[in-house]
Amino acid sequence: MTDPADWPIVTLTTDFGVGSPYVAEMKGVILGLNPRVHLVDISHSVTPQDIRQGAWILRQATRQFPPGTVHVAVVDPGVGSERGVLLARFDGQDYVAPDNGVLGLVAGEAESREVLLLDRPAYWRERLSHTFHGRDIMAPVAAQLSRGTPASAMGSPVADWVELEFPRARHEREGVSGEIVVVDSFGNLVSNLSEQDLAPHGVPQQPPVVRLGDGVSACFVRHYSQGKPGDCVALIGSGGHLEVAIVNGHAARVLGLGVGSRIVVRGSGAGQSS
Amino acid sequence: MTDPADWPIVTLTTDFGVGSPYVAEMKGVILGLNPRVHLVDISHSVTPQDIRQGAWILRQATRQFPPGTVHVAVVDPGVGSERGVLLARFDGQDYVAPDNGVLGLVAGEAESREVLLLDRPAYWRERLSHTFHGRDIMAPVAAQLSRGTPASAMGSPVADWVELEFPRARHEREGVSGEIVVVDSFGNLVSNLSEQDLAPHGVPQQPPVVRLGDGVSACFVRHYSQGKPGDCVALIGSGGHLEVAIVNGHAARVLGLGVGSRIVVRGSGAGQSS
Amino acid sequence: MTDPADWPIVTLTTDFGVGSPYVAEMKGVILGLNPRVHLVDISHSVTPQDIRQGAWILRQATRQFPPGTVHVAVVDPGVGSERGVLLARFDGQDYVAPDNGVLGLVAGEAESREVLLLDRPAYWRERLSHTFHGRDIMAPVAAQLSRGTPASAMGSPVADWVELEFPRARHEREGVSGEIVVVDSFGNLVSNLSEQDLAPHGVPQQPPVVRLGDGVSACFVRHYSQGKPGDCVALIGSGGHLEVAIVNGHAARVLGLGVGSRIVVRGSGAGQSS
Repeated sequence: MTDPADWPIVTLTTDFGVGSPYVAEMKGVILGLNPRVHLVDISHSVTPQDIRQGAWILRQATRQFPPGTVHVAVVDPGVGSERGVLLARFDGQDYVAPDNGVLGLVAGEAESREVLLLDRPAYWRERLSHTFHGRDIMAPVAAQLSRGTPASAMGSPVADWVELEFPRARHEREGVSGEIVVVDSFGNLVSNLSEQDLAPHGVPQQPPVVRLGDGVSACFVRHYSQGKPGDCVALIGSGGHLEVAIVNGHAARVLGLGVGSRIVVRGSGAGQSS
Repeated sequence: MTDPADWPIVTLTTDFGVGSPYVAEMKGVILGLNPRVHLVDISHSVTPQDIRQGAWILRQATRQFPPGTVHVAVVDPGVGSERGVLLARFDGQDYVAPDNGVLGLVAGEAESREVLLLDRPAYWRERLSHTFHGRDIMAPVAAQLSRGTPASAMGSPVADWVELEFPRARHEREGVSGEIVVVDSFGNLVSNLSEQDLAPHGVPQQPPVVRLGDGVSACFVRHYSQGKPGDCVALIGSGGHLEVAIVNGHAARVLGLGVGSRIVVRGSGAGQSS
Repeated sequence: MTDPADWPIVTLTTDFGVGSPYVAEMKGVILGLNPRVHLVDISHSVTPQDIRQGAWILRQATRQFPPGTVHVAVVDPGVGSERGVLLARFDGQDYVAPDNGVLGLVAGEAESREVLLLDRPAYWRERLSHTFHGRDIMAPVAAQLSRGTPASAMGSPVADWVELEFPRARHEREGVSGEIVVVDSFGNLVSNLSEQDLAPHGVPQQPPVVRLGDGVSACFVRHYSQGKPGDCVALIGSGGHLEVAIVNGHAARVLGLGVGSRIVVRGSGAGQSS
């Protein structure tokens, strides 16, 4: 599928913080093993130890990448303990990450799944630290994968891995409820309610009634500029989930809401207004 | 001018915030269409919806890139509305951006200009979101441009596009006044007054009298270390505009000034001191 | 050692701030001179003018890069003054940086050193600014080095360069004392005490007594997850230095300590607990 003249893509997602030399160390290790790799930063701004947010970002970003991409995800509060490291292939893309749920959302949506547990230290750095397996295990495995080392040489198949606890939509007779799972950099409140969750209630053909937190109501629109600056609007965001925004403003700050806030959507019925 | 073995350069400038998965989505789309592209982040720290700041950053950064570079700029508060998306060629470099003024400063300084309006959805992603044309229109067009698709296949020439409202220098008899238009990451207060604006007043041969805000005065120097730590100095910055700095300090915070603050420059006359 | 088909690596470390167009300007200059270069950001989050922190980040990150890498470091409060710019080769990697101590930690650990002072303006940009030698001198020199221009063509050997003032470990009879030199993005307090400094006190075989600031004591562990969330632990970090962390927390904020805080380590004796 890829021309051998093309450079393989390796992406990095971590909670190390922007400008962390830890990220650069991983890049140095990868480039030392495969200088013809295309390194792409997905995000290093995952909240430290926030596996759920890391899982969300991975799902949002990685589905846009071409087959054969190798994604390394280091959100790893259990580093140094007995937790394993996975090498997984979901729908033709590869993922290297600790076995702690961070791959849960990608795995849950994948149509094909092969998951290995890394157990061949010959492919790791010779001297392992107790605190940085991103550099010492994940980076070298990703680099070797990008050079063509078969995954099966580096790990053994596993049937079980750590599940991600993630809130699900709750369907009721008149509507569906969910919660805010991510606040993006614009302050938009992104919920766990997908287009599929909303379809039974006539969305997007009929604008639903959207309420969140303790009684804030948002006007359903198709795009931000359908509202006036300062309006509180709800819309299907670019990732296919319902989100609440303040036009040209920062919804999380203005509304005082954030991750975990409840959101309820009810069909408005034909012509019924909110 | 470029060797076919060279990879074309595509840069990204957005207001998505550092570490935003939205940026990574654009990169995934581009790499899926052209794996041999050199991706460069200019900035993702544009203040959300701040078209003027985006325009300034584009002008500052892009003039250093080689001919043939493709610059994608997504500061797009009007996404989903009727605003168009432009594909422009200014002095041999290409720009893909919403038609909202964000290309205004680059356009204003260009010696050659060709501007197209993107109107061929065949070159866009099949399914368009209402909120993310950076990913769905601009990224695929930039990728295809970098692969050699002619611009003329993707859009139609337009003669008018949205102008940028930007403060201009006001020339008076004894001097020139302007305003602070950007605060950089050091806290330096960068004005809209260019070297050309100051030349009639003897700058840089004769140090002028520089005042800003309500009476702060700054001592004109050639480089920061001509002042002592804590001194308030004014100098021609690396972009060719007058800026005010606190040596080894953060002028915006120390002086309590920022974008929109007024700055006045008067020639000191021969030997006359400020 | 490197295949001519491989692209040389050029890294950038600055105090310009994330998203600064100044960084992009340097990249544009480099790519204009050598389009086949692999650009890697190490960090642009060095605290402005903090030469010591820049030196620490350079040491931490650059030792993971392969031989032949060119590292450009712009932490340059003296720009425009008489301070020189160095082109140094330490253990097979090249460094371009102002002569102000920022290379001090890398230099101090190197087994081989060749240091040149850049003195051939023919290799610089034609028009020099007074405030941005990263763009005007260092970027073009790094680009030309990456294209194969010999270092000796661009500078002249120097025997003396500016030393870095950096706190050293103080060895006493019962233990060793040092100080916190960096706070990382997790809030971990990283000290100047290396594994070598601690070895005489039985570390890591015997857990030592670790105290920092005015009486905070930390429990010595091998990895973070040996403690419970909220525990204050001390361990050898991935860079080989003693650091203090709050498990799943931000030690600098929780403990109210930071750069300059004192840390004291005493051997606990066989079986003696802290």
